[in-house]
Amino acid sequence: MKTILLLTVSFLMTAAITVNAQKKPAEFHGATPTKAHYQVVYQLNTDDDGKIKGTLRNIQNALDDPRLKGKLEVELVVHGAGVAVYRTDKPYEELVKGLQSRGVILAMCENTMRERKIDKKELFPFVSYVPSGNGELILRQQEGWAIMHP
Amino acid sequence: MKTILLLTVSFLMTAAITVNAQKKPAEFHGATPTKAHYQVVYQLNTDDDGKIKGTLRNIQNALDDPRLKGKLEVELVVHGAGVAVYRTDKPYEELVKGLQSRGVILAMCENTMRERKIDKKELFPFVSYVPSGNGELILRQQEGWAIMHP
Amino acid sequence: MKTILLLTVSFLMTAAITVNAQKKPAEFHGATPTKAHYQVVYQLNTDDDGKIKGTLRNIQNALDDPRLKGKLEVELVVHGAGVAVYRTDKPYEELVKGLQSRGVILAMCENTMRERKIDKKELFPFVSYVPSGNGELILRQQEGWAIMHP
Repeated sequence: MKTILLLTVSFLMTAAITVNAQKKPAEFHGATPTKAHYQVVYQLNTDDDGKIKGTLRNIQNALDDPRLKGKLEVELVVHGAGVAVYRTDKPYEELVKGLQSRGVILAMCENTMRERKIDKKELFPFVSYVPSGNGELILRQQEGWAIMHP
Repeated sequence: MKTILLLTVSFLMTAAITVNAQKKPAEFHGATPTKAHYQVVYQLNTDDDGKIKGTLRNIQNALDDPRLKGKLEVELVVHGAGVAVYRTDKPYEELVKGLQSRGVILAMCENTMRERKIDKKELFPFVSYVPSGNGELILRQQEGWAIMHP
Repeated sequence: MKTILLLTVSFLMTAAITVNAQKKPAEFHGATPTKAHYQVVYQLNTDDDGKIKGTLRNIQNALDDPRLKGKLEVELVVHGAGVAVYRTDKPYEELVKGLQSRGVILAMCENTMRERKIDKKELFPFVSYVPSGNGELILRQQEGWAIMHP
């Protein structure tokens, strides 16, 4: 009897997962998402001005999406040439501060700092550091975060 | 006694997950995947002709992969300069219709429409619209879909 | 009574998932990750020398990240123009062998081989083949692997 009940619970949990996976797109587009909390890491690894501004604008658009508004946690992970976005001698301070004021976590790859011989004083003082940008992007995804690479 | 049974069930479910995570690649390559349903969002945000055609061909290749055939649900999410693929004055109608006939969902970012002052009449009438392309790509991943950015 | 116990177990499992999702970034950065095993697929589809070397270096950095060291399984999935990295007449043999010696799985897309009329003899003999690179990247993500596209 106990076994039957246990199997029933397992079955119901499996069924719930299956139903979710088969949800039709059209229904989804019209319905209100029920998840209370969404998470995404954005990868930025280029110093192309258009792509930097595009990435920062993409983050704003995601935060403003009516389906995600007030429910989206964002982390910007910068590595390689992308370091330009955090440099005090580049024109992105206002945009980056604007994102931070909306709760966006600003992470910088320490490998890039070493490889490119960049001193932390050259970057905004409010940036956080992670051992490797790639490692951070992998860890976040394995914790369940979505990834975006504009 | 009931507690022991419950713990056993929890342990078995955990064990099943662990075994799956440790599955060796060689075995996987040779074995038939057991999942009944796969889902993927493709991101397209460039008007480069080679990359547009490459993305559409990539989708066809994924649909034809013997491991996924008949089991893969695809959504193409277009934003930014990628809008070219849906324009009636561009040469992609046949390719796009071919994908739609195979069940591919065609989604277009409404933010891009506003920012670039594009009228819906300029795009194929069979395209669907989403509030933001980035939001759609995040929501889909958080629902369990894979993401591809060719 | 049995039902209550079962509901309790379900609740605890749900609670554990919720707590993980709400983990604060600052705490995470400082804490030791508890997962025993991480998995990631790297996508390479360009013959740009800088991007090939960048991708191979990114993989090394991820393997060396103190939070992932000894716990990260990596598969490099090559398709399209990326095939250059596996060609015997290109200068990447030492770097690729170095990654393989660290356990990185080397996968090549068979569609690319056909479309570009490449013979397997033109590539390193220790490369593995998959029906389609895109299919492999989708299957891996649906199995729970992270994806990186440098």
